[in-house]
Amino acid sequence: MNVLAVSPAGIFGSEFLGTMLLIVLGVGVVANALLPKTKGHDGGWQMIDWGWGIGVMVGVFAAYRTGGHLNPAVTLGLTVAGVDLAPGIPATFANVSLYIGAQLLGAMAGAVLAWLVYKQHYDLECDPSLKLGTFATGPQIRNYGWNLLTETIATYVLVIWVLLSGYTNVAKITTADNIQEISGSLIGPLGVTFLIMGIGNSLGGPTGYAINPARDLGPRIVHALLPIKGKGSSDWAYSWVPILGPILGGVLAGLTYLIFW
Amino acid sequence: MNVLAVSPAGIFGSEFLGTMLLIVLGVGVVANALLPKTKGHDGGWQMIDWGWGIGVMVGVFAAYRTGGHLNPAVTLGLTVAGVDLAPGIPATFANVSLYIGAQLLGAMAGAVLAWLVYKQHYDLECDPSLKLGTFATGPQIRNYGWNLLTETIATYVLVIWVLLSGYTNVAKITTADNIQEISGSLIGPLGVTFLIMGIGNSLGGPTGYAINPARDLGPRIVHALLPIKGKGSSDWAYSWVPILGPILGGVLAGLTYLIFW
Amino acid sequence: MNVLAVSPAGIFGSEFLGTMLLIVLGVGVVANALLPKTKGHDGGWQMIDWGWGIGVMVGVFAAYRTGGHLNPAVTLGLTVAGVDLAPGIPATFANVSLYIGAQLLGAMAGAVLAWLVYKQHYDLECDPSLKLGTFATGPQIRNYGWNLLTETIATYVLVIWVLLSGYTNVAKITTADNIQEISGSLIGPLGVTFLIMGIGNSLGGPTGYAINPARDLGPRIVHALLPIKGKGSSDWAYSWVPILGPILGGVLAGLTYLIFW
Amino acid sequence: MNVLAVSPAGIFGSEFLGTMLLIVLGVGVVANALLPKTKGHDGGWQMIDWGWGIGVMVGVFAAYRTGGHLNPAVTLGLTVAGVDLAPGIPATFANVSLYIGAQLLGAMAGAVLAWLVYKQHYDLECDPSLKLGTFATGPQIRNYGWNLLTETIATYVLVIWVLLSGYTNVAKITTADNIQEISGSLIGPLGVTFLIMGIGNSLGGPTGYAINPARDLGPRIVHALLPIKGKGSSDWAYSWVPILGPILGGVLAGLTYLIFW
Repeated sequence: MNVLAVSPAGIFGSEFLGTMLLIVLGVGVVANALLPKTKGHDGGWQMIDWGWGIGVMVGVFAAYRTGGHLNPAVTLGLTVAGVDLAPGIPATFANVSLYIGAQLLGAMAGAVLAWLVYKQHYDLECDPSLKLGTFATGPQIRNYGWNLLTETIATYVLVIWVLLSGYTNVAKITTADNIQEISGSLIGPLGVTFLIMGIGNSLGGPTGYAINPARDLGPRIVHALLPIKGKGSSDWAYSWVPILGPILGGVLAGLTYLIFW
Repeated sequence: MNVLAVSPAGIFGSEFLGTMLLIVLGVGVVANALLPKTKGHDGGWQMIDWGWGIGVMVGVFAAYRTGGHLNPAVTLGLTVAGVDLAPGIPATFANVSLYIGAQLLGAMAGAVLAWLVYKQHYDLECDPSLKLGTFATGPQIRNYGWNLLTETIATYVLVIWVLLSGYTNVAKITTADNIQEISGSLIGPLGVTFLIMGIGNSLGGPTGYAINPARDLGPRIVHALLPIKGKGSSDWAYSWVPILGPILGGVLAGLTYLIFW
Repeated sequence: MNVLAVSPAGIFGSEFLGTMLLIVLGVGVVANALLPKTKGHDGGWQMIDWGWGIGVMVGVFAAYRTGGHLNPAVTLGLTVAGVDLAPGIPATFANVSLYIGAQLLGAMAGAVLAWLVYKQHYDLECDPSLKLGTFATGPQIRNYGWNLLTETIATYVLVIWVLLSGYTNVAKITTADNIQEISGSLIGPLGVTFLIMGIGNSLGGPTGYAINPARDLGPRIVHALLPIKGKGSSDWAYSWVPILGPILGGVLAGLTYLIFW
Repeated sequence: MNVLAVSPAGIFGSEFLGTMLLIVLGVGVVANALLPKTKGHDGGWQMIDWGWGIGVMVGVFAAYRTGGHLNPAVTLGLTVAGVDLAPGIPATFANVSLYIGAQLLGAMAGAVLAWLVYKQHYDLECDPSLKLGTFATGPQIRNYGWNLLTETIATYVLVIWVLLSGYTNVAKITTADNIQEISGSLIGPLGVTFLIMGIGNSLGGPTGYAINPARDLGPRIVHALLPIKGKGSSDWAYSWVPILGPILGGVLAGLTYLIFW
């Protein structure tokens, strides 16, 4: 791995591919749980949480050259914290924009793929809100203020963990004194699997834990554009909550890190 | 990581943040399982166990500079065993007090955050014992003697594992002869996830496995103080069991280690 | 480990044993979930996904000398990508054939063992399609084109992960500069457990995720040959889908790797 | 770790403690799933499998100085394979006897502890076969020949994995050329967690997977001796199957290793 040679195209490709893989697995698991006649129909909340957790693991592996952010809230959190986005990739305006653009487009591509995988099940009749639910998150009790707070806190937990576990900057650290840092990194991709699963388990009850603006907005756009049979509304009225909440959570985590570490 | 420079404020902050993250995820997962209208409603015992296990993982990562105790029973167990609390942090009276205070306050902060995340669901009507159950543990069959024994044995398993897996003292060991020690440490945070999940699975049936005085007392205090709608009793009559049991278990594990290793 | 001395017999034995272990656990878990009177009867989709994920883990450990492919789609994907099949094993026509032959025969042996483990439960009366379902995959909504697409995309996710995680070529890399590569490799066998579990969770809903021609064809042949009581059709009409789909997915992943890395 | 200085008392203590921890968690999880009024009542087969898997993880950590066998089938398998029981512990008759004796007594101690943890739930009325089921395994369809075969194959999978993953002999290997061996070892305790869980998932359906003579015989003796309310028969007629089957499986795995590696 040459940490000095990640080109703009390399950055874009890495985050695009990683986010695409995250979303094909994430949208896929909800489709498996909610759509009619699937093998995992009514598989329950645990199945959905494992699916998203493993989606992040796969995406992190695929995007390891760029630190596997897959999430604008992580990218913005690292920027605010004043650390590099990944070894050799400083948090410049150009790089941050490139990350976020790649994440959004990757999320859209992943949603299209998941729709293709489950195309025949999307064609069956069912409650339109279930079809939307496979693409985008929605609240159990609609109240924008409380929903925003839930998303903010859940994302804060995610980004503070990413910053503290230090798994984004492995390659810098190779001396014996830093064994602990390396060890944290070694289990990074598995740790993040459990982290996402746990955030879903613990904090996903009220809003379905977007905790990632690209994860929610990208598939929602795809839901609006694709000719999905009997699809109903894309619920744009709620769409700003899973964008703003995660951004607030990520920025607050970055500020915490900046102040205390 | 400079193992020689953990200040009192650093110790406090580390254990406070780690325990806060543990409890926001732990109280959160029970809220998701028990409160009405959540996405994880009636998710079952497995969901709760994974939630607590992953809560500990996140907390351990966040508090890695202080060994990620998050639990007075662990701190007291290490003290009795005669080992340092973490690399560069001897088990003095001042340090032990600092750990325990930070853990208790961190647990309270975490419980407040989890309540905010699920605020709208706490506002719905349901059995008050379910609302208490999201904050503190309670026995299935009330009998203080047997309940105490259950908590003692469950905590013994936790602390003896922590002592034997040696994951608190990684940084001391870097020679080739000690590969096994390092390897145990590398998977420490994941291992402890499974450990907590397994203790819940296996020994949590009678009392809900507090196995940590701060985990039970902190959120119970918060339950008593917060204006939770229709909250009912905080069951202080039982509250000493999940304090004394874990302390006994931790001390017994420390003595075992002291005598046999 | 002498990476230079894997003989043809060693290659065959390694992939045969690994695939046999994968299939005895994989066919076994479906038998446990679907056949009457088992302890895991009606255990649900999660149980099946964990069973296959862990089956791959066990097989990968057993076949570590040959990279633990256990799957012709992986072998063909690596070949197209232009990388070695494993350290010291170039992707020659002879080696590729040896891998695939060993995988198919190993899958058959594993299916026979699983049938012996559950012999008394296969002897009970139940829907013949359940008995076939323990051996081979089948679609929820039969449409060869869409079923093929589902298998292709699911396998693409598998093989691109294998290529990018680089867990097949550990032994080549031992310098400090390549810590990241090594770290990916260290968790390889656990990572792949989660990967397979996640693909099942997320993309297995429509067709039951063969994602491996040997996994489907080997046990289907065994189903056709064994004297299973009341077994019904082996559904050869569908059998080409879980062969062609995985091959397409593996080759497309190999091409992606070849072009972009 | 001084690999040259494991005394007989050290060997005994290590395997005793490890097996005790395994069994307190293993018997405990079944008690949680089967006994009345527990928090995990009717938790299902997955809960039981995770409980046993994590029980082995905890025991392996606690008994790391002796390789964490916890199982006479593993000890005999390594003996037949001609490898040391652990670094510095050759497979002499005295050592093998010491291992097996410690495992049996440790299993008995663990069963007593689990009974104490669930004492009040054992005192409630329920089907006596459920109470026995928390201590010892039993077949779904009683047929000694087929039950024996099931236990033999399931144990074969366990022991061949232990032999091939090489996680018992880490300390010998520290050169750069052997990175792969070390990596296998690093995840050993987590890998074995998944392995046991997977064997339960996949091969535990017919007989409940003893796969360990001490795991079944020790708790069965305790069931016979303890004054458990309304306990019914200890089913000694079946008791030889989960002893002989695992021994056969372990020995066959040892022979496979001896011949092919």
